[in-house]
Amino acid sequence: MTNPSRPGRLSVEQYVAGTLARDRYVLSRAITLVESQLPADQALAAQVIGAVLPHTGRGIRLGITGVPGVGKSTFIEAFGHLVVAQGHRLAVLAVDPTSQVSGGSILGDKTRMETLSRHPEAYIRPSPAGSSLGGVSRKTREALLLCEAAGFDVVVVETVGVGQSETAVSQMTDFFLLLMLAGAGDELQGIKKGIMEMADAVAINKADGENLAKAKTARVEYQNALHLFPPAPTGWQPPVLTCSAATGQGLPQIWETVQQHHQQLAANGWLAQKRQAQNLAWLHDLIRQRLEGQFYQHPAVQHQLPTLQQAVVQGQMHAATAAQALLQAFAGE
Amino acid sequence: MTNPSRPGRLSVEQYVAGTLARDRYVLSRAITLVESQLPADQALAAQVIGAVLPHTGRGIRLGITGVPGVGKSTFIEAFGHLVVAQGHRLAVLAVDPTSQVSGGSILGDKTRMETLSRHPEAYIRPSPAGSSLGGVSRKTREALLLCEAAGFDVVVVETVGVGQSETAVSQMTDFFLLLMLAGAGDELQGIKKGIMEMADAVAINKADGENLAKAKTARVEYQNALHLFPPAPTGWQPPVLTCSAATGQGLPQIWETVQQHHQQLAANGWLAQKRQAQNLAWLHDLIRQRLEGQFYQHPAVQHQLPTLQQAVVQGQMHAATAAQALLQAFAGE
Repeated sequence: MTNPSRPGRLSVEQYVAGTLARDRYVLSRAITLVESQLPADQALAAQVIGAVLPHTGRGIRLGITGVPGVGKSTFIEAFGHLVVAQGHRLAVLAVDPTSQVSGGSILGDKTRMETLSRHPEAYIRPSPAGSSLGGVSRKTREALLLCEAAGFDVVVVETVGVGQSETAVSQMTDFFLLLMLAGAGDELQGIKKGIMEMADAVAINKADGENLAKAKTARVEYQNALHLFPPAPTGWQPPVLTCSAATGQGLPQIWETVQQHHQQLAANGWLAQKRQAQNLAWLHDLIRQRLEGQFYQHPAVQHQLPTLQQAVVQGQMHAATAAQALLQAFAGE
Repeated sequence: MTNPSRPGRLSVEQYVAGTLARDRYVLSRAITLVESQLPADQALAAQVIGAVLPHTGRGIRLGITGVPGVGKSTFIEAFGHLVVAQGHRLAVLAVDPTSQVSGGSILGDKTRMETLSRHPEAYIRPSPAGSSLGGVSRKTREALLLCEAAGFDVVVVETVGVGQSETAVSQMTDFFLLLMLAGAGDELQGIKKGIMEMADAVAINKADGENLAKAKTARVEYQNALHLFPPAPTGWQPPVLTCSAATGQGLPQIWETVQQHHQQLAANGWLAQKRQAQNLAWLHDLIRQRLEGQFYQHPAVQHQLPTLQQAVVQGQMHAATAAQALLQAFAGE
C-alpha cells in the first residue's frame, strides 16, 4: 500500500481514506507526512489536509501547559482515562521534553502515558525530535486536524510552558489549561510572563497528602491575581482549581470546566468566532513565515545580513538603511 | 532656508546641523519629515537619522501609559517640571487621544501640558492625527532619536494604554511606567492583558484627598499581584508607588526610581543589552513590515485575497493552500 511514484508514501486518496476510516497506522503516517520538510511531501500534505478539512472542527481542542516537573504526563494520563471512560475518543499531541537535548526521551516513550497509550480510544503522538519552539511543531495544527478527521473528538496539545510555544498553542486550541504547583514560593515557577493571562483555567496539581493545604492557599492567591485582569470578551472567567493526578481528586471538575466552557462559547457564538480568528491568523502567519523564509534564505541577504545586523545592533547604522539595503539585495538590485 | 530641489524641505545637512544645534524649529521640521509617507521624504529621513545616530542614546527613554482619565497629561506636566528643575532637558512625544476621532484635540493643544510646553528646556510634540496603533506612530522611534540628537536627555513617549501600542513603546524605551487609578474595582480598569507585566513601575495616580486611603490599598494589591510574576532577568523588581500630579506627592520618588533603574541597568550591562536587542528587533520589524507591505499591496494579491481569506476563515480551504496561491500570485506565476 505505497505510492508507486513516491516510494514510502501513500497516495492522497489513501491518506485521506485511511484517516477518515480511523486507521491509526495511516493517521500516524499522515502526521509524519505533514511534519516532513521535503517540498514534495509538503505539497502532498497540503492536499491531504485540504481533503480532510470538511471532517474537522467538531471536537474540543485543549491546550495544556506547565513547567517541567509539574506533572503534565501523569496529569494527562489520568485525565485522559477519565475522558475516554465517558465515551470520548482522545488524541494527545505530546511534547517529549528531552527530545531536543538527547535526541530521544531518556525515560523512553513507554513510561510516558503508558496505560493511556494502550487504550483503544486514545492516540498519543510525541513531537518529532528537534521540532523546537518549546516542543510545538509548526505542523501541530495540521496534526490536530488529522486527529479530528480520524474521529478523535478531544485533542490535547501539550507544551512545555517555558517558551513562546504557548501563544502558538493558544492560537490553535479552544481552551488553554495551565498546570501549576503549590508552595513553590511567591512566583510563577518560571512560567513566562503573560502565560497566566492566556489561561482559561489554572489547575494546582499534586494537591494531595502534605501538599493539600498549600494547594488550597495557592488556589486563593491565584484566584485573586486572576481577578485583577479584566474579564475576557467571551464572558468566561478563568477558575483556579486543585487536582491530583495521583488520587484523581479534582480531575472530573477540570473536565466539567472544559465542557462548560465549550458549551458556553458554542452557545454565545464565541467558539465559532475564535476559530475563525484563528484560521485568519494562521493564514497570515503562514504568509509571513514564507515571505520571511524566502527573504532570509536568499544568498544575497545571507551574505550581507551579518555585517548590517551587527552595525544596527551597535547603533552605528540606521535600521531603515540596513533594511533598505537588504531588501534591494533580495530584489536583485 | 529651504532645499531648492525639494520645495518645503531642508537639505540633509540643514536638518542634521539644525537638530544638533538644538534648533527647535528644525527639530520639529525633521520630525515632520520622518513622519511623512512620501517615498522621497522617507529616503531623506533615512539619511538624516543615519547622520544623527552617533549623537543619540545617552539619555533616558521613558514610556508612560495609562487609560484615558488616569491623568497622563497632568502627570507628565508635573513630572516634567520636576525633571527640568533638576537641570535636565525633557522631550515628550505625546499622544493626542482625541485626534483620531475629531481630527484634532477637543481641548486643543493649549490646555495639554500648557506650562511645560512653554519651558525653555522642554519640548512637546503631539502625534500626528490618525497615526494609529493607540497613538504610537511607526515613526516614534525616529522622533525619539531626533530629540536625543537635539540634546534632550530625557525623552518621554506617552501612549493611551488600551491597544497594542504598549509593546511597541516598551520596545523603544528603557523604562515603562504604568499609571493606574485606585478604587476602580478589582480589575485593571480596561488595561489590556499583559501590559502590567511590561511595567518597570506602577504608579497609582490621584492619590490625594479622599482618594488617599484607596490608593494605599490599591498599592498593596498591585504589589502582591506583581510579586506573582518572576523577577526580570535584569534583576529589577517593579515597585508600586502612589502619586498625585495635583499635590506633587510621590513624583520625586518616581523620578528617583527611574534614575535608579537606569543606573542599575547601566552598571550591570543590561541597558546596553536591552538597547541592542531593541535595535535588532527594530531591523527585523522593518524588514517584515516592508515585505508584508510589498505583498499585501501587490495588485494580484489584492485581487485574490478577499475570496481566499474568506474560504480559510470559514474552514473551507486549507490555509497552506491559500497562502501558496497568494505567494504564487505575488511572484507573478
